[in-house]
Amino acid sequence: MKNKKNRNKKLTGSSYLKDKIFSFFGSGKKYLKGFIFPEIRVGVRRISLNDKNRKDFCLDLYDTSGPYTDPRISVSISKGLPKIRSGWKKESLNEGQKKSTVSSAVTQMHYAKKGMITPEMEFVALREGCTPYLIRDEVASGRAIIPANIRHRELEPMIIGSRFLVKINANIGNSPVSSGLKEEVEKMIWAIRWGADTVMDLSTGKNIHKIRETIIRNCPVPVGTVPIYEALEKVKGNIHQLNWEIFKETLIEQAEQGVDFFTIHAGILMKTIPLAMKRKTGIVSRGGAILAKWSLYHGKENFLYTFFKEICEILKKYDVSFSLGDGLRPGCIADANDEAQFAELKILGELTKLAWSHDVQTMIEGPGHVPLHLIRENMEKQIEYCHGAPFYTLGPLTTDIAPGYDHITSSIGAALIGSLGTAMLCYVTPKEHLGLPDKEDVRNGIMAYKIAAHVADLAKNHPLARRWDDAISEARFEFRWEDQFRLALDPETARKYHEPASLKKILALDRCCSMCGPEFCSMNLSQEVKKCYKRKKKFINR
Amino acid sequence: MKNKKNRNKKLTGSSYLKDKIFSFFGSGKKYLKGFIFPEIRVGVRRISLNDKNRKDFCLDLYDTSGPYTDPRISVSISKGLPKIRSGWKKESLNEGQKKSTVSSAVTQMHYAKKGMITPEMEFVALREGCTPYLIRDEVASGRAIIPANIRHRELEPMIIGSRFLVKINANIGNSPVSSGLKEEVEKMIWAIRWGADTVMDLSTGKNIHKIRETIIRNCPVPVGTVPIYEALEKVKGNIHQLNWEIFKETLIEQAEQGVDFFTIHAGILMKTIPLAMKRKTGIVSRGGAILAKWSLYHGKENFLYTFFKEICEILKKYDVSFSLGDGLRPGCIADANDEAQFAELKILGELTKLAWSHDVQTMIEGPGHVPLHLIRENMEKQIEYCHGAPFYTLGPLTTDIAPGYDHITSSIGAALIGSLGTAMLCYVTPKEHLGLPDKEDVRNGIMAYKIAAHVADLAKNHPLARRWDDAISEARFEFRWEDQFRLALDPETARKYHEPASLKKILALDRCCSMCGPEFCSMNLSQEVKKCYKRKKKFINR
Repeated sequence: MKNKKNRNKKLTGSSYLKDKIFSFFGSGKKYLKGFIFPEIRVGVRRISLNDKNRKDFCLDLYDTSGPYTDPRISVSISKGLPKIRSGWKKESLNEGQKKSTVSSAVTQMHYAKKGMITPEMEFVALREGCTPYLIRDEVASGRAIIPANIRHRELEPMIIGSRFLVKINANIGNSPVSSGLKEEVEKMIWAIRWGADTVMDLSTGKNIHKIRETIIRNCPVPVGTVPIYEALEKVKGNIHQLNWEIFKETLIEQAEQGVDFFTIHAGILMKTIPLAMKRKTGIVSRGGAILAKWSLYHGKENFLYTFFKEICEILKKYDVSFSLGDGLRPGCIADANDEAQFAELKILGELTKLAWSHDVQTMIEGPGHVPLHLIRENMEKQIEYCHGAPFYTLGPLTTDIAPGYDHITSSIGAALIGSLGTAMLCYVTPKEHLGLPDKEDVRNGIMAYKIAAHVADLAKNHPLARRWDDAISEARFEFRWEDQFRLALDPETARKYHEPASLKKILALDRCCSMCGPEFCSMNLSQEVKKCYKRKKKFINR
Repeated sequence: MKNKKNRNKKLTGSSYLKDKIFSFFGSGKKYLKGFIFPEIRVGVRRISLNDKNRKDFCLDLYDTSGPYTDPRISVSISKGLPKIRSGWKKESLNEGQKKSTVSSAVTQMHYAKKGMITPEMEFVALREGCTPYLIRDEVASGRAIIPANIRHRELEPMIIGSRFLVKINANIGNSPVSSGLKEEVEKMIWAIRWGADTVMDLSTGKNIHKIRETIIRNCPVPVGTVPIYEALEKVKGNIHQLNWEIFKETLIEQAEQGVDFFTIHAGILMKTIPLAMKRKTGIVSRGGAILAKWSLYHGKENFLYTFFKEICEILKKYDVSFSLGDGLRPGCIADANDEAQFAELKILGELTKLAWSHDVQTMIEGPGHVPLHLIRENMEKQIEYCHGAPFYTLGPLTTDIAPGYDHITSSIGAALIGSLGTAMLCYVTPKEHLGLPDKEDVRNGIMAYKIAAHVADLAKNHPLARRWDDAISEARFEFRWEDQFRLALDPETARKYHEPASLKKILALDRCCSMCGPEFCSMNLSQEVKKCYKRKKKFINR
C-alpha cells in the first residue's frame, strides 16, 4: 500500500492533470537497451498476466506515453521532460556507403543515404522489432521517415512507413474562440497516454508560440504544425498581407523550437484552383483555402511552391520533415477522387523528389472524405505519383451523414487505407464538423484510430500484431477477467462496462457475464464441450 | 404551440417510454400509396429543409419506426399496434408463371415462384424504390427474403438481399441475471426509432413467452428468435434432456405468436465438432455450443439436422424464414476462416437447397471475428456454397483487443462485408464480451451499424444512397446548421455536440464553429475563394 501511495505522489507530471489516474493498472514500464548505442533506452509497456499454463507470462506493448508512465521519473511541466537525446552519441555507424552529396544536412535521410546508422534509427528498430539496417534502408529510399528535429531533445524517435506499424496522429490546439494553454498541454499528455504516435498542434488562437513551446518541451512524440496558421496570425488574419518573408521567419522560429514536421500546402496552384470550383464543398483544407485566396488576390503562384527550394534549405538544417499538405482534399463524398485532388497529388509527387534531393524527409497528406470503393485508387495513385513516400491520411470518412460519429465513419476508411499501405492515420474525433474536441473527444478519437491502425497491422500480417489479439482471446476463453481488462486497448472502459460488484456475486465464480448468464454462456459451454469431447473422442466417427 | 402539445399527448406509445422525445425534430411522417394494392401505405421519414436554391426541398428517408413516429396514430402497448396486414388482399397478382409444386405453403417464395406479386412485395418495392417484379424475382430465386410470418399482422414488410439496401439487426432480450419485460420492450421501440430493420429477441431469462408476445404485438419490423433457448428453459437448462418433441412444440408456439425468422443451428454435426476442438476459443455460438454438447452426450447427430425436413414443414405453414445459424463461427482472430467454419458453411448450403424445395425462405448467418484481409473469402465462399442465399453476418469484429469498443471493431468489418454483398448486418454493442447492453449501448450499436450499412450502400452505388450524403454536405457548405442537424443520422447527438448558445453569440452569424473560429473556417474561406475566383476568372491562365 505504501508503494502505491508513493507512486502516485512521484508522478508530478500527472499532478498537473485534473485526473490523477495515469498509468494503466497492471502495466509497468520496462526498458529495452541499445546494442549499437548502449545509451539508448526504449520504454515499453509491460502487462503482467496470470496465465496458469505459462508462468510469469507478460506482454510488451509499444509505448508512446514517455516518462509520464514511469513512476521513477519526476516530471515538471515548467521544466520540461529530460532531454534524452542530448546524451546520445552524435557519430553514427558508417558502413562505407556514400550516396548523398548534400552538404550541411543533418537529416536522418542524409545519414541513411550515407549508409550510417544513427541512435534514432536504432531506437526505432527496437520499437518496431526489426533490424536497424531495415530502418536505414527504408529512410534512405524515402519510403519511411523519422520525424526528429535536432532541437527536440525530449523526443523518443518513431518511424512512419508502410513496412512498419501503422501510426496515428492526434490533432490538438486551441482556436480563437476556445481553450487555452493548460487544456491543450493536458490534451497532449492524455493523447500520448492513450496511444497517439504524433501530435499536431493546430492552434490558431491566442498564445500560439507559448502553447507550442510548452507542448514541445513536454512531448516525447513528434510534434507537427501548420506554420501558415501562425504566419496568418502575424498579419492579423489579412490573407493578402502574407508573404514569403513572414512565412520564412515563422518557419525558422518553429524549427528552432523543435517542431518535427511541417504541413506545407505547396501543391495548390493556379492551374488546380479552378478544378476545385466545380465542387460541392470547394476547398475544405484551411491551409489550402488560405493559399488559394492569396493566389487569387495577388494573381501570383502560391509562394510555398515558388520558394520550395528555400524551404528545403531551412528544413534540412534542423531535420524537420515535410508533411506535404493536400489543400485540395475532398470535403464530401461527392468530391472524392476528382480531378482537383489527383492533379494536386501529382504536384506533391514532384515536390517530393525536390525535397529528397535536399535530403529532407517527406510524407504526403491524403483525404478526407472518400467512399469505401474509391479508397484503393487513392493509395495506388499516391504510391505511383509520390514514388513510395509515406502516405498520411485524414480518415478517410466513408460517409457524410453522421456528424457526431465521424470517429466511426472515418475509422472504417482508415482501417482499409491502412491495410493497403498508408503509414499514418490522422484521427478524427466525434466533434468533427461540430466544434473543438475536448479531452473525452480526444479519447474517443484515439481509441477509434488505435483500432483502425491495429486492424491494418493485422491485415498486413505485421509480426507484432497478432500476439496481442491471441493473448486477450486466451484470457477471455479462460475467464481471466483481470487479464482481459489489463490487455484491453482501454482497460478503464472495459472494466467500467463490466458488471457492478453486486451482480458479480450472483454470477457463479465469475465464469460468465450478464449478457448470457452462467447457463447460456457460450465460453462456459464450450469448455464443457471440450471436456466432454475428450472423454468421448474414441466413440466419435470422424 | 397548441399543436405541439397535442402531438406529445397523442403519442401514447411513447408515454410508455421514460424519455418523451420520440420523433426526430424537423422530420414528419409521410405515406406512399400502393399501385397494385391501393390499401398499402408505406411510411417514410420526410425531412423538410431550408434550401434557398430549391424551394420546398425535402428528403424522404427509409423509415423503420412504424406508427410510433406518427402523431395521428395512438399506440397502446397493452393493445398492440394496428394489424395493418389484416386489411390487405390475400389474392396476389398472378402473371401466369407456375414454378412451384409445393402444396400448403403460404410463403413469399411460394407466391414468387408462381409468378405472383403479393402486397408484401409491393410494400417492399415502394420502400426500396424499385419495381415489384424485381422483388418477386429475387425472392423466387432465393437471393432475397421477406421475413413475414402470416401471424405477424402488425408487420411493415422489408426485404433482405444483396441487391437491396443493406439492413441491420438489433439484438435485444433479457438474461437470467438481468432486465425484464418493460426494459426489453422499451429497447425494441428505441431500436426501431434509431433505425433497426429487424430485432432478435434473444431472451434467456424469466418470462420469455410473455416478453416475446409483447414485443411482437408492438413491433413493426420482423422479429427473430433462437428457439433452442426457450426449449432449453423448458428442460430447466439440462441440455441432455432436449429432444425433438420439446423443440417442435416450441417452434410451433413461436410460429403461432408470429416470429418472422428462426435461427436454427442445424449445421453443427458430429464430423464438424472435432474441427472446433483445436481452436483458441472453441465454440462461441450459444446455440452451437448447446447442440454440440447434446450431440456428444447422446452420441447422436444434432436433431435440428435430422429433423430438418419436419422443421421446413412447420415453417412453410406460417412463412417463418430460416436464419441458418453458424454454430461454428470463429470467436477470435486466430480461429477465423478455419476448417470448422467452412465445413459448417457447406452444410448450411445443402440445407438451403432443402429449405428452398419446401419454398421456405432462407438466409445464412456468418461470422464473428475475422481480420480485414480474410473478410472477402467469407463472402465468396458463402455465395459459392449457399447458392446466393442472403448472408447475415455478426460484425465481423476485425480485432479482439478492444472490449468496450466492439461496435467500432465490428463496424469496420461490417462495412467491408456489406460492400461485398452481405445483405444484413447484426449489430454489436460496446458491451459485447462484457455485459448485457442497456438502452444507451443499443443506440451506440445501432448508430455504428447504420453507418456501416450506409457506407456499404454507397460503395455498392445504391441509387438511394448518395442523395443523403449530398443533401447534408450542401447544408454543411452553406452553413445551414439546422438542416445539417435534421439530416444527421442522429440529429440529437449532432445538435448536442454543437456549441452552447453562449458561444454561438461570439461566432459571427453562425458561419463557423469553435473548431476553427470564423477566421480559420475553411468552409467560410472556400466561399470567399469562390467569389474571388468568379471575379478574377478571366485573368487566370488555365
